[in-house]
Amino acid sequence: MRVRGAPLIGATAAWGMYLAARDNPSDKGLENAFDELTETRPTAINLRWALEKASKKLLKLPEKERALAARVLAEKICNEDVHTCRLIGEHGVSLIRDIWESKGKLEPVHIMTHCNAGWLATVDWGTATAPIYLAQEQDIPVHVWVDETRPRNQGASLTAWELSQQEIPYTLISDNAGGHLMQSGQVDLLITGTDRTTANGDVANKIGTYLKALSAKDNNIPFYVALPSSTIDWNCQNGSEIPIEQRGQEEVLVVTGMTAAGKIESVNIAPSAAAAANPAFDITPARLVTGLITERGICRASKDALENLFPEHQQG
Amino acid sequence: MRVRGAPLIGATAAWGMYLAARDNPSDKGLENAFDELTETRPTAINLRWALEKASKKLLKLPEKERALAARVLAEKICNEDVHTCRLIGEHGVSLIRDIWESKGKLEPVHIMTHCNAGWLATVDWGTATAPIYLAQEQDIPVHVWVDETRPRNQGASLTAWELSQQEIPYTLISDNAGGHLMQSGQVDLLITGTDRTTANGDVANKIGTYLKALSAKDNNIPFYVALPSSTIDWNCQNGSEIPIEQRGQEEVLVVTGMTAAGKIESVNIAPSAAAAANPAFDITPARLVTGLITERGICRASKDALENLFPEHQQG
Repeated sequence: MRVRGAPLIGATAAWGMYLAARDNPSDKGLENAFDELTETRPTAINLRWALEKASKKLLKLPEKERALAARVLAEKICNEDVHTCRLIGEHGVSLIRDIWESKGKLEPVHIMTHCNAGWLATVDWGTATAPIYLAQEQDIPVHVWVDETRPRNQGASLTAWELSQQEIPYTLISDNAGGHLMQSGQVDLLITGTDRTTANGDVANKIGTYLKALSAKDNNIPFYVALPSSTIDWNCQNGSEIPIEQRGQEEVLVVTGMTAAGKIESVNIAPSAAAAANPAFDITPARLVTGLITERGICRASKDALENLFPEHQQG
Repeated sequence: MRVRGAPLIGATAAWGMYLAARDNPSDKGLENAFDELTETRPTAINLRWALEKASKKLLKLPEKERALAARVLAEKICNEDVHTCRLIGEHGVSLIRDIWESKGKLEPVHIMTHCNAGWLATVDWGTATAPIYLAQEQDIPVHVWVDETRPRNQGASLTAWELSQQEIPYTLISDNAGGHLMQSGQVDLLITGTDRTTANGDVANKIGTYLKALSAKDNNIPFYVALPSSTIDWNCQNGSEIPIEQRGQEEVLVVTGMTAAGKIESVNIAPSAAAAANPAFDITPARLVTGLITERGICRASKDALENLFPEHQQG
């Protein structure tokens, strides 16, 4: 968990392969690195995508060329990530503009997000945040509902901070409040990122996304998922095939923050004998997703629509 | 917030009227107390129920008889609350027994609850917990999923503690995890309390209940709401008429717990300039509620079914 965010996990994995190739460029050395890095996180598919891309390229080369090639590839993956996220922003901002215009340009577009799918989770721009940053560039007023995203509080600690750095107006809420805000007409659009999207459009993302998606559906609020196509697992037919990372109970039992005296401190929020369960992701079925925002454009969350946008992955 | 839980708020309000009647038993004194106590909490209807019951009774009496009558009434309300919750338990345990039998009595019944609707929120037994405690008495094995209930963490701090005192097996989860557990077949039954239920069966309860209810519906998991009939607002036709208490942003921004050194400490979990919104309750529409467990029995969450069970409130 030193690195988080599916796209950033992919980019970092590519740099991991570079470090491995520099240390031990043999087939065995690369294979060990591949296995070791693969096991770091089970849910984000970008990890495997980057590792497979790197090993496929490197194993074909003579050993002495591998380190340099790995470095070039890692740099390329990072640069492509920036470009991809910018494109996601350009496609996604049209949704925000449409809502703004439908509201007579009279008030900000209220966007809810979950977890952090911003530039802290990618190389730059972010995925879910890219359309928001582009809206700001284009003078479309936005306001973001940021939920805490317990148990690790990536919303409260990362997204809130990232948006403040960008000077985007936002309001923090508890995860529980999302439904009420949607019911009471205070949310125009829900956008999140994803750790893995399957060939049929099911979306694995941070635990709690499914609850927000249900509420968006129940209140006729559009829910878009922003993702680079490297996050699509074309071999995964639906969400039930995705392994859900079970993380340690301390993340639920202990909350870390800053005391009034300015000290970073951790506090236990439950009785000392309490045990906790901590599934880190959930699956939002495609039927609850209004659309997917990719670097090639926006499409419905379905096998047909995805294959139409990415015909090279057509499975017949 | 020294007192929480709709039934306990009602019982405490009755004692408040006793204290007022002891201090100043004049009409003016009682009316002032009525007004002051009414304003303490806007959502829980038991408050108004108890205050109206007390002032209706007391204002008819000579001033010198009022203090004693108020005390007798407060004691009666408390005793009735215990009896009512026990009856809720007796009706509700049949649901748990049915599930246990349908599972071939092979494994515990997994019950999810939200917030604290236990004996810490009533005079005894609790509402949502009463069927669980009765199940334990009847040797039906249960396991409870307790969610944190951010922002005030009544699940992590109160329900977890209460269940541990009763020796009921439980597991703490973040609020976000409820949907995934339901999707993955780990929840047999969702039971919560309510702060106010309307004449048509809409349920106001702790923020986040609506999200859990949506998920229960989406996964065909029964969702029952346990309530004394004093929580029903017969004058309220549907949930849109219920005022939602907006609480201070500190509850979202600051988490209190115990440090490793055993000290109670509060930590800020967001950037220092962050602003938060904190709606304390949400409305779950009757269509998402499988049934209401009352002291008179279980009924559907509908106007007809409620009036059938409580014909004295029939509105024609």
